[in-house]
Amino acid sequence: MLSLKFADGLIPVIVQDAQSRDVLMMAYANNEAVRLTQETGFAHYYSRSRKKLWKKGEESGHFQKVLRILADCDEDCLIYEVEQTGAACHTGYRTCFYRTLDGDVVGTKVFDPEKVYKKPGH
Amino acid sequence: MLSLKFADGLIPVIVQDAQSRDVLMMAYANNEAVRLTQETGFAHYYSRSRKKLWKKGEESGHFQKVLRILADCDEDCLIYEVEQTGAACHTGYRTCFYRTLDGDVVGTKVFDPEKVYKKPGH
Repeated sequence: MLSLKFADGLIPVIVQDAQSRDVLMMAYANNEAVRLTQETGFAHYYSRSRKKLWKKGEESGHFQKVLRILADCDEDCLIYEVEQTGAACHTGYRTCFYRTLDGDVVGTKVFDPEKVYKKPGH
Repeated sequence: MLSLKFADGLIPVIVQDAQSRDVLMMAYANNEAVRLTQETGFAHYYSRSRKKLWKKGEESGHFQKVLRILADCDEDCLIYEVEQTGAACHTGYRTCFYRTLDGDVVGTKVFDPEKVYKKPGH
């Protein structure tokens, strides 16, 4: 087990689809979120805006089964390799990275967020 | 062009090999680094420890040709899709994510850092 370095209690997590290898999202985890991810096999994060631990999919049903966790050379960044149910992005796109920097949409929309989330923007 | 959100002047950048689709590294860019990356087609970052702009490969020769830049839904994280010369990691591994969280080495070493860098640890 590596000694992870947390900055202000958090470590950035890159989430990659194990099958398509698309990068799905980037989020942050605290020590507890990493521990719960390892113990349960499902992705947990820490929300900086809501200031609380969250399990991906707890509202949408779009869980992430974590097949492997990788750490970088500096031990200050992680990759969760996942099997994504539904979509990673709250906008309905499969990945949060569905646009180029110029604003061109290159991703695929797979669900209607108004039907999945009770409150928009979550 | 999207309106990127920088936190303390920086935005996290996930670097993905366009061919193998491996995630190679994570680094930070400021506005100037993103602009230079777009203008030159080669990856630029901002080093938080050295407090300066850097072009990947300026010391090692391991440049990253940037084929596409993607932004996430919140416009606060980027992906550089790159053609990596040599290796991304200063340790000599192709990717910085060469270990599992348990410490098992799963990556491939492609160069000897002592031969590539004048000073170790850069």
